[in-house]
Amino acid sequence: MKRAVVLVSGGLDSATTLAMACAEGYQCHALSFRYGQRHAVELEAAERIVRELGAHQHRVLAIDLSAFGGSALTDENLKVPEQPVEGIPITYVPARNTVFLALALAWAEVLEANDVFIGVNAVDYSGYPDCRPEFIRAFERTANVATRAGVEGAGIHIRTPLIDMSKSEIIRRGLALGVDYGMTISCYQPNEEGEACGRCDSCRLRRQGFVDAGAADPTSYTMGSGADPGG
Amino acid sequence: MKRAVVLVSGGLDSATTLAMACAEGYQCHALSFRYGQRHAVELEAAERIVRELGAHQHRVLAIDLSAFGGSALTDENLKVPEQPVEGIPITYVPARNTVFLALALAWAEVLEANDVFIGVNAVDYSGYPDCRPEFIRAFERTANVATRAGVEGAGIHIRTPLIDMSKSEIIRRGLALGVDYGMTISCYQPNEEGEACGRCDSCRLRRQGFVDAGAADPTSYTMGSGADPGG
Repeated sequence: MKRAVVLVSGGLDSATTLAMACAEGYQCHALSFRYGQRHAVELEAAERIVRELGAHQHRVLAIDLSAFGGSALTDENLKVPEQPVEGIPITYVPARNTVFLALALAWAEVLEANDVFIGVNAVDYSGYPDCRPEFIRAFERTANVATRAGVEGAGIHIRTPLIDMSKSEIIRRGLALGVDYGMTISCYQPNEEGEACGRCDSCRLRRQGFVDAGAADPTSYTMGSGADPGG
Repeated sequence: MKRAVVLVSGGLDSATTLAMACAEGYQCHALSFRYGQRHAVELEAAERIVRELGAHQHRVLAIDLSAFGGSALTDENLKVPEQPVEGIPITYVPARNTVFLALALAWAEVLEANDVFIGVNAVDYSGYPDCRPEFIRAFERTANVATRAGVEGAGIHIRTPLIDMSKSEIIRRGLALGVDYGMTISCYQPNEEGEACGRCDSCRLRRQGFVDAGAADPTSYTMGSGADPGG
């Protein structure tokens, strides 16, 4: 049975990616990180998703990116923007996907898995450089010169099934595969109960996605954030 | 003052690299990892070296690569070879330099440092794929599409001053810069006192390097490993 490492954050995109990898027949080894993000509720969401979608195993690796700082997602002193911004926003975590893919690559080599799935998307996204196709291509090239798997083995493929899909297309695909999006958390600043703010960039993209998909939005929003994604 | 992140393992190569970066006038931010390596004596060596060479600061990040296994350096059940082997040896740690450079890149972005130094060497080395120039070039390309520093800033340079040098050339350069190699540990299986085995691949390369450099070898070897690097 062909194996894959699948990065699972607890959000909508990575849950859909995991469902797609399972549907392709991979034995899925799910990987999450405790990286200093503000709320552990994301990791609880990841655990539920992995169990529900029937991944083979799930590992949560601790790596303290908050030791470096520089992002509103890992530094409580920096405020998450609630309006669209120009350029790369403060929620960008320096080199996060490079770090996550590097660790996924390490595990893939040990598992003798040739595929690593990551739910990056370059259509309805926050403008992070490490979600773009040119980053993925460069990382894949690096992976294949960096490792025994690349040099002596069958090679490493970085799989990004969502990269060209709109948020509503992602949602429709996931619903067709039976993903329960009520289990997922996309918000950059959820409260301790896992309720979404409804106002950050990630909430805005998610809410609009459900509207465009013509699907019911199962997200729990904090009181007062309202139900209108248009603001 | 221009800043650099310098990866410091506690070994001969990274100590020399740090000395060279300091000599070039960089404010050096040293980074080491507690990655599940067998012996913490390497990290004690890294701390001594960083202090002695006058780096601006030193950070030790914990990241448990032994959770993945697959290497004799992180798995006590796998034996370190004491004779030369064909191909990539079992001491190769899957994707280690990709992981280390990814984390150095994250810190460099936050520090607004444009240079990351790593003491890889592709002449007198153990044959690891992630020590070769093609890996470094691919990673540098990845770094520049992955990050705010690459996309909106002045770019990231992965600096490898040792990559084409022989071990004896590295030793001579370091001695000229005042590096005390008695502080460094290269052995893949040092004992708890930090004494080197004298027999693993890393010890063999180091011992021969001192002979070829015509310099006294300050390494503490365990009793019985003898003084003859030729075996």
